[in-house]
Amino acid sequence: MPSLVHHPLDPASRLIRLMCAEYGVPLDLEEIKPWLRDEALLAINPAATLPILFTDNEQSIVGLMATMHAVEDLYAPDTVGGLFPTDPMQRAEMWRLVEWALIKLNDEVTRYLIEEKIAKRDLRGATPEPSVLRAAKANFVEHMLYFNWLLASRSWVGGDDMTLADFALAAHFSTLDYMGDIDWAKVPAETRDWYSRIKSRPAFRTLLNDRVVAMPPSKGYADLDF
Amino acid sequence: MPSLVHHPLDPASRLIRLMCAEYGVPLDLEEIKPWLRDEALLAINPAATLPILFTDNEQSIVGLMATMHAVEDLYAPDTVGGLFPTDPMQRAEMWRLVEWALIKLNDEVTRYLIEEKIAKRDLRGATPEPSVLRAAKANFVEHMLYFNWLLASRSWVGGDDMTLADFALAAHFSTLDYMGDIDWAKVPAETRDWYSRIKSRPAFRTLLNDRVVAMPPSKGYADLDF
Repeated sequence: MPSLVHHPLDPASRLIRLMCAEYGVPLDLEEIKPWLRDEALLAINPAATLPILFTDNEQSIVGLMATMHAVEDLYAPDTVGGLFPTDPMQRAEMWRLVEWALIKLNDEVTRYLIEEKIAKRDLRGATPEPSVLRAAKANFVEHMLYFNWLLASRSWVGGDDMTLADFALAAHFSTLDYMGDIDWAKVPAETRDWYSRIKSRPAFRTLLNDRVVAMPPSKGYADLDF
Repeated sequence: MPSLVHHPLDPASRLIRLMCAEYGVPLDLEEIKPWLRDEALLAINPAATLPILFTDNEQSIVGLMATMHAVEDLYAPDTVGGLFPTDPMQRAEMWRLVEWALIKLNDEVTRYLIEEKIAKRDLRGATPEPSVLRAAKANFVEHMLYFNWLLASRSWVGGDDMTLADFALAAHFSTLDYMGDIDWAKVPAETRDWYSRIKSRPAFRTLLNDRVVAMPPSKGYADLDF
């Protein structure tokens, strides 16, 4: 069985877990805290990022871009049924939105909240800096306006069909939701409906069972009717 | 002829220009300053990032991930001769290092230097903040140690053959070199030799002719014997 070195709240690891679950590939999960930068991690990945996938023949595939492509190449059942559209323009739209979730949303929202709420406490028992939390949450409101604008005219973020872009965005949403950073009462109906559809997929179950020590998930995190 | 909306010192745009030049695809270049966030740019790309590729049939391909894949899909002469290795493990190593250059190096070095030296001046006539420049340059020294460690045992950053990872890293190096942020006297021989080989490729010529208004390139920027 392939194994994945991950952290339960790392959105990049979540994306790979979602892809593997969607493709019916069971994973042996090994949890690690990348911010501790321990030597075993640095020896495999000097960038100290996650995830790291070990294939059945023990070869390591390091980092999000490498694992994302490897999972698609190794495990996608067939091109038609996979998460990467075959039409070139739909594929370009998918990559545009994958980049939005994995780089822009991460950069402006998710990574600050993980750093403040989880890594800082773990590293030095520090409490989150309120001004950073406020800025990240204000940024998230702006992102939400854009996703909602997209979802007002599309079934899925990239168009008519679910793609990797939905999983990339849902990986970030699920981390934010776990930490209690999504106020669902204020989320517009289209975005709420989209997340509800993604959350109901069998592939999502593995994420909903995640628990981080001393940090229980927000109320409603695992509910399909949230 | 396809056209590319770019900025001469944007490393993501440089990577796409290198790929197209390597594949023999002439590009109609349209220069833009993404930090001005003008409405025409936001209408095509609300993330206000570059590059944007317009194909021959006027369809827009937005952002680095989308353009990188589209150029490979549309223009790579054949899989053997392209910038993406066919061997799965070499491909994984390529993506690991592409991610290093485009995300980690960008995040810790290049984007700060562009912001401080170019965008800030352009937006409000401000001078760079010395502490930010110092931090970015100190980070670059750490990156350089790693690249040099790699290049001590490899001909190219990803292994025996040149790949997209070399172009991604060279795109960042060339932007840093233009701005005078690489002190070549202190760069170890392996890395210097690698950059010299990349710089001598015909694909690189287009970058070496770049000039930014009121900001001439560093001495040696366009010299093959630097």
